[in-house]
Amino acid sequence: MIPKDHPRYESLVLRARIVEASKAGILADSAMIAHGRGEAFDYLIGEKTTQNAKEAVKAAAAALILAEHPVVSVNGNTTALVSEDIVRLSNTLKAPIEINLFYRTPQRVEKIEKILKEKGAKNVLGVENEKKGLIKGLKGPRANASFEGVYKADVVLVPLEDGDRAEALVANGKTVITIDLNPLSRTAKTSFVTIVDNVVRAIPLITEEVKKLRNCDETELRNILNNFDNSLNLEKSLKIISKTYADEKP
Amino acid sequence: MIPKDHPRYESLVLRARIVEASKAGILADSAMIAHGRGEAFDYLIGEKTTQNAKEAVKAAAAALILAEHPVVSVNGNTTALVSEDIVRLSNTLKAPIEINLFYRTPQRVEKIEKILKEKGAKNVLGVENEKKGLIKGLKGPRANASFEGVYKADVVLVPLEDGDRAEALVANGKTVITIDLNPLSRTAKTSFVTIVDNVVRAIPLITEEVKKLRNCDETELRNILNNFDNSLNLEKSLKIISKTYADEKP
Repeated sequence: MIPKDHPRYESLVLRARIVEASKAGILADSAMIAHGRGEAFDYLIGEKTTQNAKEAVKAAAAALILAEHPVVSVNGNTTALVSEDIVRLSNTLKAPIEINLFYRTPQRVEKIEKILKEKGAKNVLGVENEKKGLIKGLKGPRANASFEGVYKADVVLVPLEDGDRAEALVANGKTVITIDLNPLSRTAKTSFVTIVDNVVRAIPLITEEVKKLRNCDETELRNILNNFDNSLNLEKSLKIISKTYADEKP
Repeated sequence: MIPKDHPRYESLVLRARIVEASKAGILADSAMIAHGRGEAFDYLIGEKTTQNAKEAVKAAAAALILAEHPVVSVNGNTTALVSEDIVRLSNTLKAPIEINLFYRTPQRVEKIEKILKEKGAKNVLGVENEKKGLIKGLKGPRANASFEGVYKADVVLVPLEDGDRAEALVANGKTVITIDLNPLSRTAKTSFVTIVDNVVRAIPLITEEVKKLRNCDETELRNILNNFDNSLNLEKSLKIISKTYADEKP
Protein backbone atom coordinates (compact mmCIF):
# COMPACT_ATOMS: atom_id res chain seq x y z
CA MET A 1 0.00 0.00 0.00
CA ILE A 2 1.32 3.39 -0.99
CA PRO A 3 0.57 6.06 1.68
CA LYS A 4 -1.70 8.78 0.28
CA ASP A 5 0.48 11.56 1.62
CA HIS A 6 3.56 10.31 -0.22
CA PRO A 7 4.87 13.21 -2.35
CA ARG A 8 4.99 10.93 -5.39
CA TYR A 9 1.71 9.10 -4.65
CA GLU A 10 0.10 9.42 -8.11
CA SER A 11 3.24 8.31 -9.90
CA LEU A 12 3.70 5.34 -7.55
CA VAL A 13 0.08 4.22 -8.04
CA LEU A 14 0.63 4.14 -11.81
CA ARG A 15 3.89 2.29 -11.36
CA ALA A 16 2.12 -0.31 -9.22
CA ARG A 17 -0.54 -0.76 -11.93
CA ILE A 18 2.18 -1.40 -14.50
CA VAL A 19 3.99 -3.90 -12.25
CA GLU A 20 0.67 -5.69 -11.61
CA ALA A 21 -0.16 -5.79 -15.32
CA SER A 22 3.27 -7.17 -16.09
CA LYS A 23 2.77 -9.96 -13.56
CA ALA A 24 -0.67 -10.64 -15.06
CA GLY A 25 0.92 -11.18 -18.49
CA ILE A 26 -0.71 -8.19 -20.17
CA LEU A 27 2.53 -6.41 -21.04
CA ALA A 28 5.39 -7.12 -23.41
CA ASP A 29 8.86 -7.64 -21.95
CA SER A 30 10.03 -4.10 -22.38
CA ALA A 31 6.75 -2.34 -21.57
CA MET A 32 7.92 -1.45 -18.07
CA ILE A 33 10.96 0.25 -19.58
CA ALA A 34 8.65 2.33 -21.78
CA HIS A 35 6.65 3.27 -18.69
CA GLY A 36 9.84 4.43 -16.98
CA ARG A 37 10.66 6.70 -19.92
CA GLY A 38 7.17 8.13 -19.60
CA GLU A 39 7.68 8.73 -15.87
CA ALA A 40 10.80 10.77 -16.60
CA PHE A 41 9.11 12.91 -19.25
CA ASP A 42 6.03 13.40 -17.08
CA TYR A 43 8.26 14.60 -14.26
CA LEU A 44 9.79 17.12 -16.67
CA ILE A 45 6.45 18.64 -17.68
CA GLY A 46 5.50 18.91 -14.01
CA GLU A 47 3.12 15.91 -13.83
CA LYS A 48 0.13 18.01 -14.78
CA THR A 49 -1.77 18.81 -17.97
CA THR A 50 -0.23 21.90 -19.55
CA GLN A 51 -2.21 24.64 -21.26
CA ASN A 52 -1.06 23.52 -24.71
CA ALA A 53 -1.95 19.90 -23.93
CA LYS A 54 -5.47 21.18 -23.20
CA GLU A 55 -5.55 22.84 -26.61
CA ALA A 56 -4.40 19.59 -28.22
CA VAL A 57 -7.17 17.75 -26.33
CA LYS A 58 -9.71 20.16 -27.81
CA ALA A 59 -8.40 19.60 -31.35
CA ALA A 60 -8.43 15.83 -30.74
CA ALA A 61 -12.05 15.96 -29.58
CA ALA A 62 -13.07 18.00 -32.63
CA ALA A 63 -11.36 15.55 -35.00
CA LEU A 64 -12.98 12.55 -33.28
CA ILE A 65 -16.45 14.11 -33.46
CA LEU A 66 -16.01 15.01 -37.14
CA ALA A 67 -14.77 11.51 -38.00
CA GLU A 68 -16.94 9.09 -39.95
CA HIS A 69 -15.16 6.05 -38.51
CA PRO A 70 -13.21 6.99 -35.40
CA VAL A 71 -11.30 4.21 -33.63
CA VAL A 72 -9.59 4.10 -30.23
CA SER A 73 -6.51 1.91 -30.45
CA VAL A 74 -5.09 0.43 -27.23
CA ASN A 75 -1.98 -1.49 -26.25
CA GLY A 76 -0.98 -3.24 -23.02
CA ASN A 77 0.25 -0.14 -21.21
CA THR A 78 -2.85 1.91 -22.03
CA THR A 79 -5.05 -0.93 -20.83
CA ALA A 80 -3.04 -1.33 -17.63
CA LEU A 81 -3.12 2.38 -16.84
CA VAL A 82 -6.47 3.71 -17.94
CA SER A 83 -8.84 0.99 -19.22
CA GLU A 84 -11.97 2.37 -17.53
CA ASP A 85 -11.55 5.80 -19.07
CA ILE A 86 -10.77 4.28 -22.47
CA VAL A 87 -14.06 2.40 -22.35
CA ARG A 88 -15.91 5.54 -21.28
CA LEU A 89 -14.40 7.48 -24.19
CA SER A 90 -15.23 4.70 -26.65
CA ASN A 91 -18.83 4.58 -25.45
CA THR A 92 -19.16 8.37 -25.56
CA LEU A 93 -17.86 8.44 -29.12
CA LYS A 94 -19.67 5.24 -30.12
CA ALA A 95 -16.29 4.28 -31.56
CA PRO A 96 -14.84 0.77 -31.36
CA ILE A 97 -11.71 -0.02 -29.35
CA GLU A 98 -9.05 -1.92 -31.27
CA ILE A 99 -6.37 -3.98 -29.54
CA ASN A 100 -3.14 -3.17 -31.27
CA LEU A 101 -0.02 -4.78 -29.80
CA PHE A 102 3.54 -4.29 -30.92
CA TYR A 103 4.54 -7.74 -29.65
CA ARG A 104 1.30 -9.55 -30.33
CA THR A 105 0.44 -12.89 -28.74
CA PRO A 106 -3.03 -14.47 -28.61
CA GLN A 107 -2.70 -14.74 -24.81
CA ARG A 108 -2.09 -11.04 -24.33
CA VAL A 109 -4.89 -10.12 -26.75
CA GLU A 110 -7.31 -12.36 -24.87
CA LYS A 111 -6.40 -10.91 -21.47
CA ILE A 112 -6.73 -7.33 -22.68
CA GLU A 113 -10.06 -8.09 -24.36
CA LYS A 114 -11.33 -9.57 -21.09
CA ILE A 115 -10.32 -6.48 -19.09
CA LEU A 116 -11.93 -4.08 -21.56
CA LYS A 117 -15.17 -6.07 -21.62
CA GLU A 118 -15.26 -6.26 -17.83
CA LYS A 119 -15.00 -2.47 -17.82
CA GLY A 120 -18.03 -2.23 -20.13
CA ALA A 121 -16.55 -2.07 -23.64
CA LYS A 122 -19.22 -2.78 -26.24
CA ASN A 123 -17.15 -3.26 -29.37
CA VAL A 124 -13.63 -4.64 -29.04
CA LEU A 125 -11.80 -5.24 -32.31
CA GLY A 126 -8.33 -6.48 -33.14
CA VAL A 127 -9.05 -9.80 -31.46
CA GLU A 128 -8.11 -13.25 -32.74
CA ASN A 129 -9.93 -14.87 -35.70
CA GLU A 130 -11.12 -11.58 -37.11
CA LYS A 131 -10.94 -10.32 -40.66
CA LYS A 132 -7.85 -8.13 -40.93
CA GLY A 133 -6.64 -5.70 -43.58
CA LEU A 134 -3.01 -4.77 -44.20
CA ILE A 135 -1.57 -1.35 -43.39
CA LYS A 136 0.88 -0.64 -46.21
CA GLY A 137 4.48 0.09 -45.24
CA LEU A 138 4.60 -2.29 -42.26
CA LYS A 139 6.00 -5.82 -42.14
CA GLY A 140 4.75 -8.99 -40.46
CA PRO A 141 1.91 -9.17 -37.95
CA ARG A 142 2.34 -5.47 -37.13
CA ALA A 143 0.79 -4.63 -40.50
CA ASN A 144 -2.56 -6.21 -39.55
CA ALA A 145 -5.46 -3.97 -38.67
CA SER A 146 -9.05 -4.88 -38.01
CA PHE A 147 -11.12 -4.54 -41.17
CA GLU A 148 -13.94 -2.80 -39.30
CA GLY A 149 -11.51 -0.82 -37.12
CA VAL A 150 -8.20 0.89 -37.92
CA TYR A 151 -8.22 -0.40 -41.52
CA LYS A 152 -11.46 1.41 -42.28
CA ALA A 153 -10.98 4.34 -39.89
CA ASP A 154 -10.48 7.92 -40.99
CA VAL A 155 -9.45 9.13 -37.52
CA VAL A 156 -7.43 6.97 -35.11
CA LEU A 157 -6.59 7.78 -31.52
CA VAL A 158 -3.43 5.77 -30.79
CA PRO A 159 -1.89 6.59 -27.42
CA LEU A 160 1.71 5.44 -26.77
CA GLU A 161 2.28 4.36 -30.36
CA ASP A 162 5.52 3.20 -31.98
CA GLY A 163 7.08 5.57 -34.54
CA ASP A 164 7.04 3.18 -37.51
CA ARG A 165 3.36 2.49 -37.08
CA ALA A 166 2.39 6.09 -36.55
CA GLU A 167 4.19 6.98 -39.79
CA ALA A 168 2.52 4.11 -41.68
CA LEU A 169 -0.93 5.13 -40.46
CA VAL A 170 -0.35 8.69 -41.65
CA ALA A 171 1.00 7.40 -44.99
CA ASN A 172 -2.20 5.35 -45.33
CA GLY A 173 -4.25 8.52 -45.10
CA LYS A 174 -5.40 8.30 -41.50
CA THR A 175 -5.74 11.34 -39.26
CA VAL A 176 -3.61 10.23 -36.32
CA ILE A 177 -4.14 11.55 -32.80
CA THR A 178 -1.62 10.40 -30.25
CA ILE A 179 -0.81 10.88 -26.59
CA ASP A 180 2.95 10.90 -26.05
CA LEU A 181 4.97 12.46 -23.23
CA ASN A 182 8.09 12.84 -25.40
CA PRO A 183 7.55 15.79 -27.74
CA LEU A 184 10.61 14.72 -29.73
CA SER A 185 9.47 11.17 -30.53
CA ARG A 186 8.77 10.24 -34.13
CA THR A 187 5.17 9.49 -33.19
CA ALA A 188 4.79 12.94 -31.65
CA LYS A 189 6.24 14.62 -34.73
CA THR A 190 4.28 12.55 -37.27
CA SER A 191 0.81 12.76 -35.78
CA PHE A 192 -1.80 15.32 -36.71
CA VAL A 193 -2.54 16.00 -33.05
CA THR A 194 -0.10 15.09 -30.28
CA ILE A 195 -1.31 15.46 -26.72
CA VAL A 196 1.90 15.77 -24.67
CA ASP A 197 0.46 14.46 -21.45
CA ASN A 198 0.09 11.35 -19.33
CA VAL A 199 -2.63 9.03 -20.75
CA VAL A 200 -4.29 8.82 -17.35
CA ARG A 201 -4.92 12.55 -17.40
CA ALA A 202 -5.49 12.97 -21.15
CA ILE A 203 -8.10 10.28 -21.83
CA PRO A 204 -10.74 11.58 -19.36
CA LEU A 205 -10.11 15.11 -20.62
CA ILE A 206 -10.83 14.02 -24.21
CA THR A 207 -14.12 12.46 -23.08
CA GLU A 208 -15.10 15.66 -21.28
CA GLU A 209 -14.22 17.75 -24.32
CA VAL A 210 -16.18 15.45 -26.67
CA LYS A 211 -19.25 15.92 -24.47
CA LYS A 212 -18.71 19.67 -24.48
CA LEU A 213 -18.19 20.01 -28.24
CA ARG A 214 -20.48 17.43 -29.74
CA ASN A 215 -23.39 19.80 -30.19
CA CYS A 216 -21.27 22.34 -32.05
CA ASP A 217 -21.92 22.67 -35.77
CA GLU A 218 -19.42 21.40 -38.30
CA THR A 219 -18.01 24.83 -39.16
CA GLU A 220 -17.14 25.48 -35.54
CA LEU A 221 -15.41 22.10 -35.22
CA ARG A 222 -13.49 22.64 -38.46
CA ASN A 223 -12.37 26.04 -37.15
CA ILE A 224 -10.93 24.42 -34.04
CA LEU A 225 -8.96 22.03 -36.24
CA ASN A 226 -7.79 24.75 -38.62
CA ASN A 227 -6.52 26.83 -35.73
CA PHE A 228 -4.51 23.96 -34.32
CA ASP A 229 -0.83 23.69 -35.30
CA ASN A 230 0.87 20.55 -34.02
CA SER A 231 4.43 21.85 -34.61
CA LEU A 232 3.67 24.89 -32.51
CA ASN A 233 2.04 22.67 -29.89
CA LEU A 234 5.18 20.48 -29.66
CA GLU A 235 7.41 23.52 -29.57
CA LYS A 236 5.48 24.83 -26.57
CA SER A 237 5.92 21.49 -24.78
CA LEU A 238 9.65 21.58 -25.45
CA LYS A 239 9.84 25.06 -23.99
CA ILE A 240 8.12 23.92 -20.80
CA ILE A 241 10.62 21.09 -20.36
CA SER A 242 13.51 23.37 -21.18
CA LYS A 243 12.25 25.91 -18.66
CA THR A 244 11.85 23.24 -15.94
CA TYR A 245 15.56 22.63 -16.24
CA ALA A 246 16.63 26.20 -16.73
CA ASP A 247 14.79 27.29 -13.57
CA GLU A 248 15.91 24.48 -11.29
CA LYS A 249 18.79 24.88 -8.93
CA PRO A 250 20.50 21.71 -7.82
CA MET B 1 19.35 -9.87 -32.54
CA ILE B 2 19.56 -6.10 -32.80
CA PRO B 3 21.12 -4.99 -36.13
CA LYS B 4 24.40 -3.12 -35.53
CA ASP B 5 23.43 -0.28 -37.84
CA HIS B 6 20.23 0.49 -35.92
CA PRO B 7 20.33 4.18 -34.95
CA ARG B 8 19.54 3.26 -31.35
CA TYR B 9 21.74 0.12 -31.22
CA GLU B 10 23.58 0.89 -27.95
CA SER B 11 20.38 1.78 -26.14
CA LEU B 12 18.61 -1.35 -27.41
CA VAL B 13 21.50 -3.59 -26.33
CA LEU B 14 21.24 -2.23 -22.80
CA ARG B 15 17.48 -2.66 -22.85
CA ALA B 16 17.93 -6.29 -23.90
CA ARG B 17 20.37 -6.87 -21.01
CA ILE B 18 17.79 -5.49 -18.57
CA VAL B 19 14.99 -7.64 -20.00
CA GLU B 20 17.25 -10.72 -19.81
CA ALA B 21 18.23 -9.95 -16.23
CA SER B 22 14.60 -9.50 -15.28
CA LYS B 23 13.77 -12.92 -16.73
CA ALA B 24 16.75 -14.39 -14.87
CA GLY B 25 15.31 -13.10 -11.57
CA ILE B 26 18.11 -10.66 -10.83
CA LEU B 27 15.94 -7.55 -10.78
CA ALA B 28 13.20 -6.23 -8.51
CA ASP B 29 9.72 -5.75 -9.98
CA SER B 30 10.11 -2.10 -10.79
CA ALA B 31 13.75 -2.19 -11.91
CA MET B 32 12.77 -2.07 -15.57
CA ILE B 33 10.80 1.10 -14.90
CA ALA B 34 13.89 2.65 -13.34
CA HIS B 35 15.86 1.65 -16.43
CA GLY B 36 13.32 3.39 -18.64
CA ARG B 37 13.66 6.60 -16.65
CA GLY B 38 17.40 6.33 -17.19
CA GLU B 39 16.90 5.85 -20.94
CA ALA B 40 14.92 9.09 -21.11
CA PHE B 41 17.50 11.11 -19.17
CA ASP B 42 20.37 9.59 -21.17
CA TYR B 43 18.59 10.60 -24.36
CA LEU B 44 18.38 14.15 -23.01
CA ILE B 45 22.11 14.44 -22.31
CA GLY B 46 22.82 13.11 -25.81
CA GLU B 47 23.78 9.53 -24.84
CA LYS B 48 27.43 10.43 -24.42
CA THR B 49 29.70 11.39 -21.53
CA THR B 50 29.65 15.16 -21.14
CA GLN B 51 32.68 17.27 -20.26
CA ASN B 52 31.40 17.88 -16.75
CA ALA B 53 30.72 14.16 -16.24
CA LYS B 54 34.40 13.62 -17.11
CA GLU B 55 35.38 16.12 -14.42
CA ALA B 56 33.13 14.30 -11.94
CA VAL B 57 34.80 11.01 -12.93
CA LYS B 58 38.20 12.55 -12.15
CA ALA B 59 37.02 13.71 -8.71
CA ALA B 60 35.50 10.27 -8.07
CA ALA B 61 38.78 8.56 -8.97
CA ALA B 62 40.74 10.89 -6.68
CA ALA B 63 38.36 10.23 -3.76
CA LEU B 64 38.53 6.46 -4.30
CA ILE B 65 42.35 6.48 -4.41
CA LEU B 66 42.55 8.61 -1.25
CA ALA B 67 40.09 6.37 0.60
CA GLU B 68 41.24 4.06 3.36
CA HIS B 69 38.31 1.69 2.88
CA PRO B 70 36.68 2.27 -0.50
CA VAL B 71 33.70 0.08 -1.39
CA VAL B 72 31.87 -0.42 -4.68
CA SER B 73 28.19 -1.00 -3.97
CA VAL B 74 26.06 -2.75 -6.64
CA ASN B 75 22.39 -3.46 -7.15
CA GLY B 76 20.57 -5.60 -9.72
CA ASN B 77 20.53 -3.04 -12.51
CA THR B 78 24.24 -2.25 -12.18
CA THR B 79 25.04 -5.96 -12.25
CA ALA B 80 22.82 -6.52 -15.28
CA LEU B 81 24.31 -3.62 -17.21
CA VAL B 82 27.97 -3.47 -16.36
CA SER B 83 29.16 -6.34 -14.13
CA GLU B 84 32.47 -6.93 -15.95
CA ASP B 85 33.54 -3.33 -15.64
CA ILE B 86 32.46 -3.23 -12.00
CA VAL B 87 34.70 -6.21 -11.28
CA ARG B 88 37.58 -4.60 -13.17
CA LEU B 89 37.17 -1.38 -11.15
CA SER B 90 36.98 -3.31 -7.88
CA ASN B 91 40.16 -5.24 -8.73
CA THR B 92 41.97 -2.08 -9.84
CA LEU B 93 41.06 -0.35 -6.57
CA LYS B 94 41.51 -3.51 -4.49
CA ALA B 95 38.14 -2.51 -3.05
CA PRO B 96 35.40 -5.01 -2.20
CA ILE B 97 32.08 -5.10 -4.04
CA GLU B 98 29.04 -5.05 -1.80
CA ILE B 99 25.64 -6.30 -2.95
CA ASN B 100 23.14 -3.75 -1.78
CA LEU B 101 19.54 -4.37 -2.87
CA PHE B 102 16.56 -2.16 -2.20
CA TYR B 103 14.19 -5.15 -2.35
CA ARG B 104 16.50 -7.76 -0.92
CA THR B 105 15.83 -11.48 -1.28
CA PRO B 106 18.36 -14.27 -0.66
CA GLN B 107 17.68 -15.59 -4.19
CA ARG B 108 18.57 -12.31 -5.89
CA VAL B 109 21.65 -11.87 -3.71
CA GLU B 110 22.85 -15.37 -4.59
CA LYS B 111 22.34 -14.85 -8.33
CA ILE B 112 24.15 -11.51 -8.32
CA GLU B 113 27.02 -12.97 -6.26
CA LYS B 114 27.37 -15.79 -8.79
CA ILE B 115 27.54 -13.38 -11.75
CA LEU B 116 30.13 -11.18 -10.07
CA LYS B 117 32.32 -14.16 -9.15
CA GLU B 118 32.06 -15.57 -12.66
CA LYS B 119 33.32 -12.21 -13.92
CA GLY B 120 36.34 -12.50 -11.61
CA ALA B 121 35.30 -10.63 -8.47
CA LYS B 122 37.66 -11.47 -5.58
CA ASN B 123 35.79 -10.05 -2.61
CA VAL B 124 31.99 -9.93 -2.72
CA LEU B 125 30.32 -8.66 0.45
CA GLY B 126 26.69 -8.07 1.39
CA VAL B 127 25.93 -11.76 0.92
CA GLU B 128 23.80 -13.92 3.17
CA ASN B 129 25.04 -15.11 6.60
CA GLU B 130 27.52 -12.31 6.96
CA LYS B 131 28.13 -10.00 9.89
CA LYS B 132 26.19 -6.79 9.23
CA GLY B 133 26.23 -3.38 10.87
CA LEU B 134 23.34 -0.92 10.92
CA ILE B 135 23.31 2.32 8.95
CA LYS B 136 21.55 4.81 11.23
CA GLY B 137 18.47 6.54 9.83
CA LEU B 138 17.19 3.60 7.77
CA LYS B 139 14.52 1.10 8.71
CA GLY B 140 14.27 -2.66 8.23
CA PRO B 141 16.63 -4.76 6.11
CA ARG B 142 17.64 -1.69 4.11
CA ALA B 143 19.63 -0.49 7.12
CA ASN B 144 22.00 -3.48 6.96
CA ALA B 145 25.47 -2.99 5.60
CA SER B 146 28.35 -5.41 5.51
CA PHE B 147 30.61 -4.94 8.52
CA GLU B 148 33.74 -5.16 6.38
CA GLY B 149 32.13 -3.21 3.51
CA VAL B 150 29.86 -0.17 3.51
CA TYR B 151 29.61 -0.13 7.33
CA LYS B 152 33.37 0.39 7.68
CA ALA B 153 33.90 2.33 4.44
CA ASP B 154 34.97 5.96 4.30
CA VAL B 155 34.25 6.28 0.56
CA VAL B 156 31.36 4.46 -1.15
CA LEU B 157 30.68 4.34 -4.85
CA VAL B 158 26.92 3.63 -5.12
CA PRO B 159 25.60 3.88 -8.68
CA LEU B 160 21.81 4.12 -9.15
CA GLU B 161 21.10 4.59 -5.45
CA ASP B 162 17.80 5.40 -3.78
CA GLY B 163 17.49 8.89 -2.22
CA ASP B 164 16.81 7.75 1.36
CA ARG B 165 19.85 5.56 1.43
CA ALA B 166 22.14 8.10 -0.17
CA GLU B 167 21.07 10.62 2.47
CA ALA B 168 21.59 8.11 5.29
CA LEU B 169 25.07 7.20 4.05
CA VAL B 170 26.04 10.87 3.99
CA ALA B 171 24.53 11.38 7.47
CA ASN B 172 26.66 8.44 8.66
CA GLY B 173 29.79 10.28 7.58
CA LYS B 174 30.50 8.47 4.31
CA THR B 175 31.86 10.22 1.24
CA VAL B 176 29.26 9.17 -1.31
CA ILE B 177 30.02 8.98 -5.02
CA THR B 178 27.07 8.17 -7.23
CA ILE B 179 26.26 7.73 -10.91
CA ASP B 180 22.79 9.09 -11.68
CA LEU B 181 21.37 10.32 -14.98
CA ASN B 182 18.83 12.57 -13.27
CA PRO B 183 20.65 15.65 -11.97
CA LEU B 184 17.55 16.60 -9.96
CA SER B 185 17.26 13.35 -7.97
CA ARG B 186 17.78 13.44 -4.23
CA THR B 187 20.69 11.04 -4.63
CA ALA B 188 22.31 13.37 -7.18
CA LYS B 189 21.88 16.37 -4.90
CA THR B 190 23.04 14.64 -1.70
CA SER B 191 26.17 12.94 -2.95
CA PHE B 192 29.65 14.38 -2.71
CA VAL B 193 30.35 13.51 -6.34
CA THR B 194 27.54 12.81 -8.84
CA ILE B 195 28.56 11.50 -12.23
CA VAL B 196 25.60 12.39 -14.46
CA ASP B 197 26.19 9.65 -17.00
CA ASN B 198 25.14 6.16 -17.97
CA VAL B 199 26.78 3.53 -15.70
CA VAL B 200 27.99 1.59 -18.74
CA ARG B 201 30.06 4.58 -19.84
CA ALA B 202 31.00 5.92 -16.40
CA ILE B 203 32.36 2.78 -14.70
CA PRO B 204 35.12 2.04 -17.27
CA LEU B 205 36.05 5.74 -17.27
CA ILE B 206 36.52 5.67 -13.48
CA THR B 207 38.82 2.63 -13.82
CA GLU B 208 40.87 4.42 -16.48
CA GLU B 209 41.11 7.55 -14.36
CA VAL B 210 42.14 5.56 -11.26
CA LYS B 211 44.98 4.02 -13.28
CA LYS B 212 46.02 7.46 -14.52
CA LEU B 213 45.94 9.16 -11.12
CA ARG B 214 47.08 6.51 -8.72
CA ASN B 215 50.74 7.52 -8.85
CA CYS B 216 49.94 11.16 -8.06
CA ASP B 217 50.93 12.38 -4.60
CA GLU B 218 48.31 13.08 -1.98
CA THR B 219 48.44 16.89 -2.37
CA GLU B 220 47.64 16.63 -6.06
CA LEU B 221 44.70 14.32 -5.40
CA ARG B 222 43.38 16.59 -2.63
CA ASN B 223 43.62 19.53 -5.04
CA ILE B 224 41.43 17.71 -7.55
CA LEU B 225 38.83 17.15 -4.83
CA ASN B 226 39.03 20.72 -3.55
CA ASN B 227 38.49 22.08 -7.03
CA PHE B 228 35.39 19.96 -7.58
CA ASP B 229 32.00 21.51 -6.80
CA ASN B 230 29.10 19.09 -7.11
CA SER B 231 26.40 21.81 -7.22
CA LEU B 232 28.17 23.46 -10.12
CA ASN B 233 28.57 20.05 -11.79
CA LEU B 234 24.83 19.35 -11.50
CA GLU B 235 23.99 22.82 -12.73
CA LYS B 236 26.08 22.23 -15.87
CA SER B 237 24.21 18.96 -16.50
CA LEU B 238 20.89 20.75 -16.16
CA LYS B 239 22.03 23.33 -18.67
CA ILE B 240 22.91 20.64 -21.19
CA ILE B 241 19.46 19.08 -20.87
CA SER B 242 17.77 22.47 -21.03
CA LYS B 243 19.78 23.30 -24.14
CA THR B 244 18.88 19.98 -25.81
CA TYR B 245 15.28 21.06 -25.59
CA ALA B 246 15.78 24.72 -26.36
CA ASP B 247 17.67 23.89 -29.57
CA GLU B 248 15.35 21.21 -30.89
CA LYS B 249 12.74 21.97 -33.46
CA PRO B 250 9.82 19.60 -33.62
